[in-house]
Amino acid sequence: MSDRRLIRAIGVLESCFKEKFGTPRQPQLVPASRARLRIKPQFIPEQSLKGLSEFSHVWLLPYFHLNTNKAFVSTIHPPRLKGKTMGVFASRSPHRPSPIGLSLARLLRVEGDTLYFSEIDLVDGTPILDLKPYIPAYDSVPEASPGWTARAGARELAVEFSPEAREQARRHELEDLVSQVLRQDLRNPRDASQMRDGKPLACMLGDFDVRYEVREGTARVLEIVPAPEEHAQKRRVPVPGELE
Amino acid sequence: MSDRRLIRAIGVLESCFKEKFGTPRQPQLVPASRARLRIKPQFIPEQSLKGLSEFSHVWLLPYFHLNTNKAFVSTIHPPRLKGKTMGVFASRSPHRPSPIGLSLARLLRVEGDTLYFSEIDLVDGTPILDLKPYIPAYDSVPEASPGWTARAGARELAVEFSPEAREQARRHELEDLVSQVLRQDLRNPRDASQMRDGKPLACMLGDFDVRYEVREGTARVLEIVPAPEEHAQKRRVPVPGELE
Repeated sequence: MSDRRLIRAIGVLESCFKEKFGTPRQPQLVPASRARLRIKPQFIPEQSLKGLSEFSHVWLLPYFHLNTNKAFVSTIHPPRLKGKTMGVFASRSPHRPSPIGLSLARLLRVEGDTLYFSEIDLVDGTPILDLKPYIPAYDSVPEASPGWTARAGARELAVEFSPEAREQARRHELEDLVSQVLRQDLRNPRDASQMRDGKPLACMLGDFDVRYEVREGTARVLEIVPAPEEHAQKRRVPVPGELE
Repeated sequence: MSDRRLIRAIGVLESCFKEKFGTPRQPQLVPASRARLRIKPQFIPEQSLKGLSEFSHVWLLPYFHLNTNKAFVSTIHPPRLKGKTMGVFASRSPHRPSPIGLSLARLLRVEGDTLYFSEIDLVDGTPILDLKPYIPAYDSVPEASPGWTARAGARELAVEFSPEAREQARRHELEDLVSQVLRQDLRNPRDASQMRDGKPLACMLGDFDVRYEVREGTARVLEIVPAPEEHAQKRRVPVPGELE
């Protein structure tokens, strides 16, 4: 049966982003992000990865396993476009007929069957369908027209820490990661309750729950506490069996 | 059943490249290439394409339907590396565990449900799984390390036409396309019979068979003749039913 499969996961990404909320919408925004990918033994990593470590960047083709769409949705509301709609094919939204992403990651190193990345925008547990080298002669077109994204405002927040959270962030070496993640404003502008000043918010980064609130354009980190194991498990969604 | 499908074709590409032989290995080499993609009605093109025409470049995610691999092959021989091997994940080879490509195309225009492209490297009949805008802020990294591709020699041929072929190329407006395609040297350096000087070669471009030979680094086009319909059909491979 395996020969009949159209697509297969070559591995499952282990990422510092443990849930959708907190996962960046594009990779370069969070240089402190970290992930690793172990290539499954049946894809003979000692041969199939030969030559890859010379590249600084790689394309990951993730399967968007957290999508729960029952039907095709033809338009999306980019969070940065203040309610305007765009066609799904004019966007990088995960909600697509073939739920396959395209994510550029910086390749830090290759150790045996495992690849280590930074600058990622994928959630923990994402099945990876393919891995390709970034070849600037093919892939880099700085003069390409950016379409509507040129008009999309970057909603940035200031980030500050309570004295307690600052100490916790330092102890666990999470200052850069937390700052880079919260700066982007994770909230959905179409969710009025989320947008309310002082609303308690939290995201799971690495093994920690980061609790914070937003007031007048500033995200204030209140505390950074170890996440209970059942918390992490509750947020996971199983990978489709067909990809295993 | 359709909700259970992991991936679906949003359309099938109609390309000027009618067979593997003659299809470029990277897109920018053949600016005269042309292709079009009609988005299937169930993906509501009048909505899902909204905003796309503002972008100059798009990513196509093709399904490599011509692959006939029975088992996983972990290394490849890049034609430009003179027999050296590279891991399949350090290459853009179509022979991958998930036979999904990544192809950048220039978007010429959008007309209703149909997209028109140039600078393509995909063969006619390729199922397209997804279409994404090229966003230079995410996708363009000119300083990325090109890995082994920096050491790969570009084997270029001179191209000349017989008087008869010159006249045929002019009449059918094929001079640029034929020149750009043959310049790259389509032959497989590991195929001694193909590499023999004077070996009769042919590729199908648009509705024409282009017959040529290579001698001492020069490709000489001998004639450009309408391809018989049965010729075109014989070279086609059916698309997997699961993608329809």
